Amino acid sequence: MTTPQQFDRLTPDGDTHERDVCRTCGFVDYQNPRIVVGSVVRHQGKVLMCRRAIEPRRGFWTVPAGYLELNETPEDGAKREAREEALANLELGELLAIYSVPRLSQVQLIWRAELIDPGAGAGAALYGVGEESLEVELFDWDKLPVDEIAFPTVHWMLGHEREVMEKGYSGPFGNAG
Amino acid sequence: MTTPQQFDRLTPDGDTHERDVCRTCGFVDYQNPRIVVGSVVRHQGKVLMCRRAIEPRRGFWTVPAGYLELNETPEDGAKREAREEALANLELGELLAIYSVPRLSQVQLIWRAELIDPGAGAGAALYGVGEESLEVELFDWDKLPVDEIAFPTVHWMLGHEREVMEKGYSGPFGNAG
Repeated sequence: MTTPQQFDRLTPDGDTHERDVCRTCGFVDYQNPRIVVGSVVRHQGKVLMCRRAIEPRRGFWTVPAGYLELNETPEDGAKREAREEALANLELGELLAIYSVPRLSQVQLIWRAELIDPGAGAGAALYGVGEESLEVELFDWDKLPVDEIAFPTVHWMLGHEREVMEKGYSGPFGNAG
Repeated sequence: MTTPQQFDRLTPDGDTHERDVCRTCGFVDYQNPRIVVGSVVRHQGKVLMCRRAIEPRRGFWTVPAGYLELNETPEDGAKREAREEALANLELGELLAIYSVPRLSQVQLIWRAELIDPGAGAGAALYGVGEESLEVELFDWDKLPVDEIAFPTVHWMLGHEREVMEKGYSGPFGNAG
């Protein structure tokens, strides 16, 4: 279990791109861009954010989002991430945005969402805090932790959600900034 | 290079899902859903289709589409696939549809597109035929090879493109039928 991996860079037969092939066992490590699914979650005029308990960007604020898993629809993945990170159940609305971050080989699919049935003490307590979060909080739009946002795309999606709230929905946004 | 791979199914530390871990070298084979990028390409009132030269579904008709590569934007990937399969240069329009095929762990991003500068003999000859295609052809919408379409999602996207042509664009479609 601890033998270090040694890969050669080869173009396998019938392929058009070079891949990493393990010298030890011949395994071809096909790497593909990864899909991040997430949501901008509204509740009572506020927006739900999570303070990250894990690297990268531990301690910074983000929305519920993460990697899509095998055999999962993107919509189910976005809901799962909200359950895991904020113990929140969502009703998804329109697809807010599709961002691509080619440097990281990432494509992000971000939905608009509403919190379902957060119970009596919803204003601040919400459901609780998932293992990957230090805090989960509902922010007023004019009190967002703008200086402690984890990733550029989180700025983009908050801006795009505001634009939809003001002007209505007209299809998903692409990269901003 | 020919040692057969032997994987154990384990949940690595700090992970929430089981992964395949190589018994020989400890490599964790993180598998993620794959992103297919493609386009419905219009030209002079017709639609471009490719007859597949490769499995699966060799001999059946599809649109230019394939897996997004690392460090590639989805838009660039959709254009690359059209170059590879139909030697065609595209101008992309709106995002036509996002389909998910969880059984195959696939998410498909499909654009509307127009053929750029196909030259004088554009009607039938187009640019040529890529290695992955047996034929490339422009079809009238009422003469599509409906009984020889390679994949269900190709039926969906042709139907969705027709709907946009008739009613205008109003955001990307999701899964059909």
